[in-house]
Amino acid sequence: MRIIDIIGKKRDGLCLNDEEIHFAVNGYTAGDIADYQMSALLMAIYLQGMSLNETLALLDAMIQSGDRIDLSQVPGPKIDKHSTGGVGDKVSLVLAPLIAAAGITVPMISGRGLGHTGGTLDKLESIPGFRCSLSMAEFKAQLRRLGVAMIGQTSRIVPADKKIYALRDATATIASVPLITASILSKKLAEGAAGLVLDVKFGSGAFMKDLQTAQTLAENLVRTANGYGLPACAVLSSMEQPLGKAIGNWLEVQEAVQALQGQGPCDLMEITFELGAEMLRLAGSKKTRKDLERIIDSGAALEKFLSLVAAQGGDRSFLLKPERYPAPKYQQAICSQGEGYLLSIDALAVGQVCVTLGGGRNQMHDTIDHKAGILLGKKCGDPVHRGDLLATLYSDRKDVLADAVQQIKNALRLSDTPLHPPSLIQQIIRS
Amino acid sequence: MRIIDIIGKKRDGLCLNDEEIHFAVNGYTAGDIADYQMSALLMAIYLQGMSLNETLALLDAMIQSGDRIDLSQVPGPKIDKHSTGGVGDKVSLVLAPLIAAAGITVPMISGRGLGHTGGTLDKLESIPGFRCSLSMAEFKAQLRRLGVAMIGQTSRIVPADKKIYALRDATATIASVPLITASILSKKLAEGAAGLVLDVKFGSGAFMKDLQTAQTLAENLVRTANGYGLPACAVLSSMEQPLGKAIGNWLEVQEAVQALQGQGPCDLMEITFELGAEMLRLAGSKKTRKDLERIIDSGAALEKFLSLVAAQGGDRSFLLKPERYPAPKYQQAICSQGEGYLLSIDALAVGQVCVTLGGGRNQMHDTIDHKAGILLGKKCGDPVHRGDLLATLYSDRKDVLADAVQQIKNALRLSDTPLHPPSLIQQIIRS
Repeated sequence: MRIIDIIGKKRDGLCLNDEEIHFAVNGYTAGDIADYQMSALLMAIYLQGMSLNETLALLDAMIQSGDRIDLSQVPGPKIDKHSTGGVGDKVSLVLAPLIAAAGITVPMISGRGLGHTGGTLDKLESIPGFRCSLSMAEFKAQLRRLGVAMIGQTSRIVPADKKIYALRDATATIASVPLITASILSKKLAEGAAGLVLDVKFGSGAFMKDLQTAQTLAENLVRTANGYGLPACAVLSSMEQPLGKAIGNWLEVQEAVQALQGQGPCDLMEITFELGAEMLRLAGSKKTRKDLERIIDSGAALEKFLSLVAAQGGDRSFLLKPERYPAPKYQQAICSQGEGYLLSIDALAVGQVCVTLGGGRNQMHDTIDHKAGILLGKKCGDPVHRGDLLATLYSDRKDVLADAVQQIKNALRLSDTPLHPPSLIQQIIRS
Repeated sequence: MRIIDIIGKKRDGLCLNDEEIHFAVNGYTAGDIADYQMSALLMAIYLQGMSLNETLALLDAMIQSGDRIDLSQVPGPKIDKHSTGGVGDKVSLVLAPLIAAAGITVPMISGRGLGHTGGTLDKLESIPGFRCSLSMAEFKAQLRRLGVAMIGQTSRIVPADKKIYALRDATATIASVPLITASILSKKLAEGAAGLVLDVKFGSGAFMKDLQTAQTLAENLVRTANGYGLPACAVLSSMEQPLGKAIGNWLEVQEAVQALQGQGPCDLMEITFELGAEMLRLAGSKKTRKDLERIIDSGAALEKFLSLVAAQGGDRSFLLKPERYPAPKYQQAICSQGEGYLLSIDALAVGQVCVTLGGGRNQMHDTIDHKAGILLGKKCGDPVHRGDLLATLYSDRKDVLADAVQQIKNALRLSDTPLHPPSLIQQIIRS
């Protein structure tokens, strides 16, 4: 078998068989196939697509490239959630403890932020002392004890994905439905999830800019997961405006704590409950969304989060007394010079400003200022009066503030006439 | 400007502008753009195509990647011929001296054989002493003195093509019309040709297997050459059966000498005169095909070839007394066991057997046995009687002979009914 024949076959729009796909993935992971051959194959896949069978073979080859976590010793259903990424997306911080408090085990393995989208690991690490890298023994013990653990990927989980993703990132082959599908599902399957709820976002601040592309991805994710024996469903949610009002790691942790205290913004609660209900369903639980609301109100979800933070070395006192947290050097309020109703908040622009303020990364090795970010004063649909607070920027970087203010102003648009808040959840795709 | 944006643009089927194409070619040639990025771009070009303007920009960027030979000090029109490659294609050995004898300067820069197709340089080097690597000063002096020189590419001519071609070869991106077009024309333009006749072959032994693909390539070559200011035309010729009866370097040189002596096989003479007439036309000469036939008959073309060989260090005595040439260790005749008319001779299979016998290369660094090859006893359409000689194999390799005989037998098919010889020249595309 020769990689050049496999490239040529896919280039011509033919289907690759299991053996060919395993040959390509194994050969590339082992270093026997050159980067330039793999990138040609990836571009051919991008442009010619992959059938369900091909995607399943790719998924299988990627899972088999590394270790697979065995959670059979952890009792009960193990359900995970994955988001395709957005701006202000702190759902995992609320949802994981909430579902664990509902009696479902949540073995959550997350990633870091890059570009305008944030990452759950960075948010958690904004809590002083929090450790995302548990050993496998610690991870399993904590799952048994608390029902939830939130960690980062280990290098032994799907090494093929790390190598292929880095290559895709450098060769404009990221936005391919079968490649994204295999990348997401391989990690979740290798990490031992027995059920998966996918939050597939679309709109300005999402990876998929339009609903149709997101639908295609969501359907492909669910179909492929099911084809591999993993119960899964996908919630299609809008990422036109940021989720909630906080954007930036520590700001988002605070908003998540407020949400766990029953004081979260409507859109954050809406998506959290919707995803949570799907997780309960996949776990075969009799509990419903109403139960989740009660668990929040009871304080049990907050207590679970505080226990999780403490278990992973975090100083939970900052969560309850955020005024103790180091303050950013600069705060800059932006007030409205016009009147009307907030028509749109460009999530992509807000995410990019957050990076500029120090709260995100342009390159994977950039360091993050956890304090930096944006707190929105209004959400889409809100009435706006002259002088109303539209946003506050937090940063240690004085030199970027003036530009950032201008960019946030440009990102906000007013309407003269009243309007409904945009709908958040567009569709749920079940198997 | 970032290469990843250029890849993404072409991936999405958009047209690249001149600046972007120059950025990609220059960056890759200089080593600033990685192989894996260039191969992704090449695959995107393969699948999305290129407009005429894009192909012209690619051509220009490739020409500018190296030196351009200045033949302005050589008087008269300078016309070259290029073949897309085939089996038994020794046309250049006959055509170059013939056209030079007709008063047109032929600055011919050729390549080597790879796979089943032969290369003019290898054929010339089968003549003891022949030197393909002249200095630029020698090249120009010989063109002034003899009107013809036949040399190989220097490393300073279109270095971008060398690097890109090697990458295409490893990534299944060879068969792309715009990439082939820019590759062929960049070398011919950098080499100082002022007019170009293209022999675009189709069929089993050619690079393009069907007439339609060859037509597309031929039209694109002529249109792009004209767009760059180079008068050009393309002759579409069949490569279903080998050209002439000799396949293998020294065997082909002997057949070329016979052709120059007026005893060449019909198909070889037909394509030589047809290409030659087009070269005369591009040169603005009043001479016609009839004049070319007369030049052969007069012995002037043979004399020109002998002078060329002598000027480049070759021992011309071997050409007139081929019996002095070292004999291959083994000769194996294949005689017909059936009767009828020769229906087809699979050129690809014959070319591959020639490689097996030692007469070609599978890899660029393989050495060639110049004596090895195949002499056909019949051509398509010829009547065949039981016991007639169909082919003779020449090789130093005893171990491959039995297999080679079987492959040649498989490559030949007989018909019960008489048939016309297949037509060789299908179409001529002029600007």
